[in-house]
Amino acid sequence: MRRIAIAALLACTLAAEAPAQPLQVREIGSLHVGGRIAEISGLPEQEITFSPGAPPLRINPNGQFQVEQMYAQYVRLAEPRARYPLILAHGGGLTGVTYETTPDGRPGWQMAFLRAGHDVFVTDAVERGRSGWARFPQVFPGEPVFRTMGEGWGLFRVGPGDGWNIDPAQRRAFPDSRFPTGAWNQFMMQAVPRWVTTDRQIQAGYDALVQQICPCVLLVHSQGGNFGFRAALNAPDKVRAVIAVEPSGAPPESQDAAALKEIPHLVVWGDYTSENPFWQRIRSNIDRWQAQIRAVGGVADTLDMPAEGVRGNSHMIMMDTNSDDVAARINTWLERRGLVR
Amino acid sequence: MRRIAIAALLACTLAAEAPAQPLQVREIGSLHVGGRIAEISGLPEQEITFSPGAPPLRINPNGQFQVEQMYAQYVRLAEPRARYPLILAHGGGLTGVTYETTPDGRPGWQMAFLRAGHDVFVTDAVERGRSGWARFPQVFPGEPVFRTMGEGWGLFRVGPGDGWNIDPAQRRAFPDSRFPTGAWNQFMMQAVPRWVTTDRQIQAGYDALVQQICPCVLLVHSQGGNFGFRAALNAPDKVRAVIAVEPSGAPPESQDAAALKEIPHLVVWGDYTSENPFWQRIRSNIDRWQAQIRAVGGVADTLDMPAEGVRGNSHMIMMDTNSDDVAARINTWLERRGLVR
Repeated sequence: MRRIAIAALLACTLAAEAPAQPLQVREIGSLHVGGRIAEISGLPEQEITFSPGAPPLRINPNGQFQVEQMYAQYVRLAEPRARYPLILAHGGGLTGVTYETTPDGRPGWQMAFLRAGHDVFVTDAVERGRSGWARFPQVFPGEPVFRTMGEGWGLFRVGPGDGWNIDPAQRRAFPDSRFPTGAWNQFMMQAVPRWVTTDRQIQAGYDALVQQICPCVLLVHSQGGNFGFRAALNAPDKVRAVIAVEPSGAPPESQDAAALKEIPHLVVWGDYTSENPFWQRIRSNIDRWQAQIRAVGGVADTLDMPAEGVRGNSHMIMMDTNSDDVAARINTWLERRGLVR
Repeated sequence: MRRIAIAALLACTLAAEAPAQPLQVREIGSLHVGGRIAEISGLPEQEITFSPGAPPLRINPNGQFQVEQMYAQYVRLAEPRARYPLILAHGGGLTGVTYETTPDGRPGWQMAFLRAGHDVFVTDAVERGRSGWARFPQVFPGEPVFRTMGEGWGLFRVGPGDGWNIDPAQRRAFPDSRFPTGAWNQFMMQAVPRWVTTDRQIQAGYDALVQQICPCVLLVHSQGGNFGFRAALNAPDKVRAVIAVEPSGAPPESQDAAALKEIPHLVVWGDYTSENPFWQRIRSNIDRWQAQIRAVGGVADTLDMPAEGVRGNSHMIMMDTNSDDVAARINTWLERRGLVR
């Protein structure tokens, strides 16, 4: 990993010194993929006034609905340097906004990878953000979960679990935390509700996008990790590499990894996992999956930022103050794998 | 309006013949604005497994939440021709995706106005899309409304109200409809739930964005219409023009329009309103507001596409097959008002 570190340092230095050239963009657009038509019946009629001064409408809430579709936005460059488009998938309780401007106002990974010459797709998982959501419990089993403002503070390893306080002046972060802690409330505005009973539908959404868009490279985060691993297993002919950033889950030990022999994997970890039993258990599970990939002759690398001498990264690495450096290291790994010219 | 028609025709012809140059993009990014912190208490704890192989977590659903924020994505050009950024606001039951790629795969108005040289902001109203949504009824009063697949067919004047059928082969559109009817199901994937009790919060979101981003031009659609009219009234020092596309509501007659004297307004209508009592009532209400703007010495123009000799446009003009032509006409109006160099 030493060469990656030096190359990344060089890339960062060059990026910091050169004035930013405009991106040459061929097209910005979006699509919805996947999903199905669901029918709901038995609900009573409603009378609703939708706009001031408009006549009220009688609404029959029964009927057919498009449900379980997934949204993806793309930016296509005039002359991409990457061989394949890069699909970014976010984690639980969040949306593709994860990859956009950081909570403290810096360009995010969508911009970083565009600048590095990738066509970039930013996705909202099924039932998140612009993918919409369906009536529950009629279509989605159970109720959604709403993350409180304080829950992520410890879970995302910004500070100790009891270090979050509604009063920003009272919050305690890890002393060397690279998360822009002053922008925590801004970050919390990105939070969206989520179900925990929709894994099958979410996977189907990613699989549908892969079928429509790929060959491609997948970059997935947190809860998106297992969906990314599965998407490669489900379409080994189409996925060219998987970058799993702080993945929270992996396929079980019973899963044959043979299909991944030609699909290089990179897992990226931030700091503070070694003192955290919850995250240690997650890492062990991911290490186990990585070992299965290597056991079938595949490539499964790990970029452990503290091991690289970079302390302070949180679970939300793409928002940390060194987010450009981490993106550069990932891009260097893709270059070494022959995926970026 | 004759000169606008000729200029638009010329613009369209030139656009069709010239090979598309890449957009010179300075930055793509996003932000959330507005909102507040809400506190919820009294709900029972939950134990939830979020990812396969991860340990279960005990979740306390009580706590503080960021609510009622609004999401906006921006594309800033290296050298915009427009004097001010253009903020696009969608209508009810939809999101900013309204302005992205059309359901049948053509570049949408975000691209059209970027190509015309505007910095473009695409917004998701409070409680829609990437703005997220909050627990109900604790934070949002009442239940959300889910639009059925058939409801929009007549309401959006694609075909007669009874012309929608779950079987695409059985659907009846107006003979000269310009909506890409083969892509109706694809369009329905854009639908998101909406509340009808959140007008105040939605307005506050737009007002917060105007305060942060403007001076600017607002382009609003359908339910977005009244929010746009109000946003100009609430910040006449910041809004430079309002384009209301098929607006469904307007401020009441008791509202003083004097603040709008220097803020030119353009209202755009598609086809089939004259035979439709519901839409006739809406148009009368909008005409009344436009007359109030003129009565205080302001500019309030109307672009009525059938009156221009263009038949077939639906309520979803930005998705119709002549969407580029309509965008060009709007851009010409902005040029005539001195808002595009």
